[in-house]
Amino acid sequence: MQKTKCLLLIFDGMGDRPVAELGGLTPLEAAETPNLDAMAKRGINGIMDPIAPGIRPGSDTSHLSYLGADPYVWYTGRGPFEAAGIGLDVRPGDVAFRCNFATVDEKMAIVDRRAGRITEGTHELAQAIDGMEIQGVKVIFKESVAHRGALILRGSGLGHKVSDVDPHDTGGPVRRCEALDADSRKTASVINEFVRISHERLEKHRVNVERRKKGLLPANALLPRGAGVLKEIPSFKQRFGLSAAAIAEVGLISGVAKIVGLDVIEVAGSTGGLDTDTKALGSAAVSALGRYDFVMMNVKGCDIAGHDGQPKAKVAMIERLDQMIGEIMPLIGEGTYVAVTADHSTPVSVKNHSGDPVPLCIVGRGVRPDDVTEFGERSCSKGGMGRITGKDLMNVLLDLMDRAPMFGA
Amino acid sequence: MQKTKCLLLIFDGMGDRPVAELGGLTPLEAAETPNLDAMAKRGINGIMDPIAPGIRPGSDTSHLSYLGADPYVWYTGRGPFEAAGIGLDVRPGDVAFRCNFATVDEKMAIVDRRAGRITEGTHELAQAIDGMEIQGVKVIFKESVAHRGALILRGSGLGHKVSDVDPHDTGGPVRRCEALDADSRKTASVINEFVRISHERLEKHRVNVERRKKGLLPANALLPRGAGVLKEIPSFKQRFGLSAAAIAEVGLISGVAKIVGLDVIEVAGSTGGLDTDTKALGSAAVSALGRYDFVMMNVKGCDIAGHDGQPKAKVAMIERLDQMIGEIMPLIGEGTYVAVTADHSTPVSVKNHSGDPVPLCIVGRGVRPDDVTEFGERSCSKGGMGRITGKDLMNVLLDLMDRAPMFGA
Repeated sequence: MQKTKCLLLIFDGMGDRPVAELGGLTPLEAAETPNLDAMAKRGINGIMDPIAPGIRPGSDTSHLSYLGADPYVWYTGRGPFEAAGIGLDVRPGDVAFRCNFATVDEKMAIVDRRAGRITEGTHELAQAIDGMEIQGVKVIFKESVAHRGALILRGSGLGHKVSDVDPHDTGGPVRRCEALDADSRKTASVINEFVRISHERLEKHRVNVERRKKGLLPANALLPRGAGVLKEIPSFKQRFGLSAAAIAEVGLISGVAKIVGLDVIEVAGSTGGLDTDTKALGSAAVSALGRYDFVMMNVKGCDIAGHDGQPKAKVAMIERLDQMIGEIMPLIGEGTYVAVTADHSTPVSVKNHSGDPVPLCIVGRGVRPDDVTEFGERSCSKGGMGRITGKDLMNVLLDLMDRAPMFGA
Repeated sequence: MQKTKCLLLIFDGMGDRPVAELGGLTPLEAAETPNLDAMAKRGINGIMDPIAPGIRPGSDTSHLSYLGADPYVWYTGRGPFEAAGIGLDVRPGDVAFRCNFATVDEKMAIVDRRAGRITEGTHELAQAIDGMEIQGVKVIFKESVAHRGALILRGSGLGHKVSDVDPHDTGGPVRRCEALDADSRKTASVINEFVRISHERLEKHRVNVERRKKGLLPANALLPRGAGVLKEIPSFKQRFGLSAAAIAEVGLISGVAKIVGLDVIEVAGSTGGLDTDTKALGSAAVSALGRYDFVMMNVKGCDIAGHDGQPKAKVAMIERLDQMIGEIMPLIGEGTYVAVTADHSTPVSVKNHSGDPVPLCIVGRGVRPDDVTEFGERSCSKGGMGRITGKDLMNVLLDLMDRAPMFGA
């Protein structure tokens, strides 16, 4: 028999709540989605709580959950996933942080948390920071897109329970890093020293001298946040026996994929924005299915429209994703299961993630089709799958793929 | 008030997937089931994951789950349940195995894993094996139906994490038993010695000498597999305060029932096959309800048709079970709840257990009837019970029976 495969399509933040501007429909319900609806008709549908009912998931925790790695066991903070996502070699035991380049005044008060949304010169700035050693701890730092970066502390005696240096607000001072448990005192001390030294080095750096000349805000401070320690997660291949790859548009999701053990595929034309090349993404997913048993793809756009509170932009993005579905479905072989869902809801009314369940549709040989004829939050809640949680998803897919071990005899 | 009782009917492997040959219906959907449909109309319906969504259950793990004994806690392998099922006195700490009588050549390569499906003489062969002592470990062996048997090792220092001797295939050699953890080295060593000695004794046994004369394959080897250690499960009576009995057609399920603390009732006419006497089974269940608070009955036929990939045989078996329902329902008292379900799905397209949820219907005083009018996988998914898991079943039944303790005040 032909080897079964699976494509898991995750439309970031697609779930929503009824929007008055859309006549009381959600963006997904309001969008014209003939291809998603065709999937709903031939597939089995349901709703899914990425973590558990009412729990507001991050994109990181929900993807961990979907990929069979219980975030309550494996997730301690976003840092390691951010660091892995930008290509840093994070190792078990490393304590890692997301960082912003920021602008501070002479009293270390925040002028701009994003250093004037700096776009150039951060590589040189990062090189002035990367590789230093503080209290015997190795400091690894790398810039990411725009004002973003990631920091790794590698050494012994490092706990990860420390407060954020980033105050998440302008005007006030850079916060001191505080240990939140006894094991994390050294980490807090190293971070405070790191903030002081990096400020010294960045303040007088050539890149910032030139930015000041041009009237731009200097990127003269680094604000670590989201501390987490990397635990060694058994690899996806080891757990499920599947060769697997991920296509993701943002570092955090690439990082989750890498740490879980998926190969990460870069796609030219992917922007992570509303203007991303969905045609290129779809082609890349189909092509990856030729080489891997399991392909997960995250497309970011819906989440951005949700955070921005733009229902019409979200509808438009969903309609582009529906077109992508229409393009790729005819190219997908009979033995391949396709699951479509979101990693969480990002209601335009909330402008942030919510704990609402997300719709889920699975098509492929042997599923029990139900009466659902439209892919949407409320229509799927009447589907044959009922309500499952994110940690069930891989088991359900493996079972359909006839690749699940039997528990018992 | 009259004492409440409960009859739990488990139709083994009844759940299925849509079958093209049946017009896209499952065997249960395709079958004429007026009596099950009548139950669905007056009862509350739902779907149930025996273990959890997508997890492929064994019959043993699902029955443990239904009987309120979490298989993730109590199940280590099928051996103890097989041994208990054929009447061996398995004790906590015993390491037990399912065994096949097999035919091997002079190099210990497998000629037939079932010794020509031997039907006679296994009792005498077993007597030549039972009671030996190896490395201070007591060896208990008993034959079961046809080529089957069970083995118990009783002694100190015995772990249960060992590989199967049975290669599950013909042509290759009998496998050496390997310890899969340090605590199981002695067990592996005893098993390898057991295989050697039993081969010596069986090879020259009178029964086999005569079989050879008749041109039959000798039952000259024993192949242990499915090692498990018996843990002491708190009894059903102790946990739920119910006197309870089981009617089961195969040893594995009788064994689960015995170990969980149910009395096991034998039924004349029960064959475990598609030809079983469903009338006799139904009568036995009704009769048992006169003596016990809780009666569980497993009827095997559907599972056999599923493993054999025979949709029409499965439909026919389901129709016979429906007739049985029609016969017994008028005889069941008002204070008795009746639940009908399957222990797992055995789709005819898969020819093995799958992780698809199973339909569940409960009738009795006080249930909240829903809109479901037909008992089937998809119709029940729209029922008032939604989707529950096997470990919830006893709690739901106890609650309806007004025999559940309150958690809180």
